[in-house]
Amino acid sequence: MLKKIDIKTSSRVEFVDITARVLEAVGASGVASGTCRVYCPHTTAGITVNEHADPAVAADIAAGLDRAVPQNESYRHAEGNSPAHIKASLMGASATLFVEGGTLALGTWQGVFLAEFDGPRRRQVWVKVTED
Amino acid sequence: MLKKIDIKTSSRVEFVDITARVLEAVGASGVASGTCRVYCPHTTAGITVNEHADPAVAADIAAGLDRAVPQNESYRHAEGNSPAHIKASLMGASATLFVEGGTLALGTWQGVFLAEFDGPRRRQVWVKVTED
Amino acid sequence: MLKKIDIKTSSRVEFVDITARVLEAVGASGVASGTCRVYCPHTTAGITVNEHADPAVAADIAAGLDRAVPQNESYRHAEGNSPAHIKASLMGASATLFVEGGTLALGTWQGVFLAEFDGPRRRQVWVKVTED
Repeated sequence: MLKKIDIKTSSRVEFVDITARVLEAVGASGVASGTCRVYCPHTTAGITVNEHADPAVAADIAAGLDRAVPQNESYRHAEGNSPAHIKASLMGASATLFVEGGTLALGTWQGVFLAEFDGPRRRQVWVKVTED
Repeated sequence: MLKKIDIKTSSRVEFVDITARVLEAVGASGVASGTCRVYCPHTTAGITVNEHADPAVAADIAAGLDRAVPQNESYRHAEGNSPAHIKASLMGASATLFVEGGTLALGTWQGVFLAEFDGPRRRQVWVKVTED
Repeated sequence: MLKKIDIKTSSRVEFVDITARVLEAVGASGVASGTCRVYCPHTTAGITVNEHADPAVAADIAAGLDRAVPQNESYRHAEGNSPAHIKASLMGASATLFVEGGTLALGTWQGVFLAEFDGPRRRQVWVKVTED
């Protein structure tokens, strides 16, 4: 079963920590041991797993991507959001996580983020949890 | 069951829209609700999910990756295609997609691409569709 | 069942070829045809699939990422390892591979790497293999 999570972003670039929402979906699924897939149905946002203890890490990732994919280059796509498309592909549209003991098996510092690159917008994240 | 899709690329760098081919594999699988994994068995090409309505987006992604990973740096690998290997790892070797109602659950603008970085070549993409 | 692989890295940046260890986990699982997921529970290391025949390729990927995400920029996160976090997100925390005939279905040149960006450290890689 596909669980759809609604998210409202508030800046152009923003890493939204969705770990609690994904954990909720895992709990609701009743799956004890399995796989959880988190999917972003957008093309100017992505999903990434990284540290969520210190929010400065996500800010540094956003800044690092800005340097690697500068806003002020010339792009062909007329909407002006090509850097957001590029960053979305760099982060990827999905994450695959493990479920053990009825909850997400994450590393100590890991959280799951929706990486917004063309906000503010209403976004969705889709989650599917399956038993092994 | 693994479905192998044959692709012939025609440029050094080229984003080949394989959405229709993946949809075909999903239809043939008979899976109603499940997961579709798209895998690239090559090391100088990758898989990415991004906008396929305007082909300028894929061209901008290709150009953005060229700027982030310049061709004219010095590399150790003797074949001269190290930038292609780097870009393949940046895009990733696989994509995980959801299947609902017997077809791919994609976002409005999303398509699936084989990202060729060392063409022209004959390539394969492997697709596996499983019921939840 | 989750198989945990222990790895000791010996440099700050190092691509550790874990293909043999993953193949071992696949063999031990007894799965004939299925999916293998490789997961990195760390936030300054990632998983990537790329050429493992010539070790110069992994060295070039490491160097290319160093150029795209320079060490000597200013970062907010106080630990000084922000470039490692950024590169971890660029590589991704997991890889999805196919299992056919009781073994990994990899392309001719493909291997699986733990990409260490903040070593040397003790790391783990988690592997889960499921029947289709």
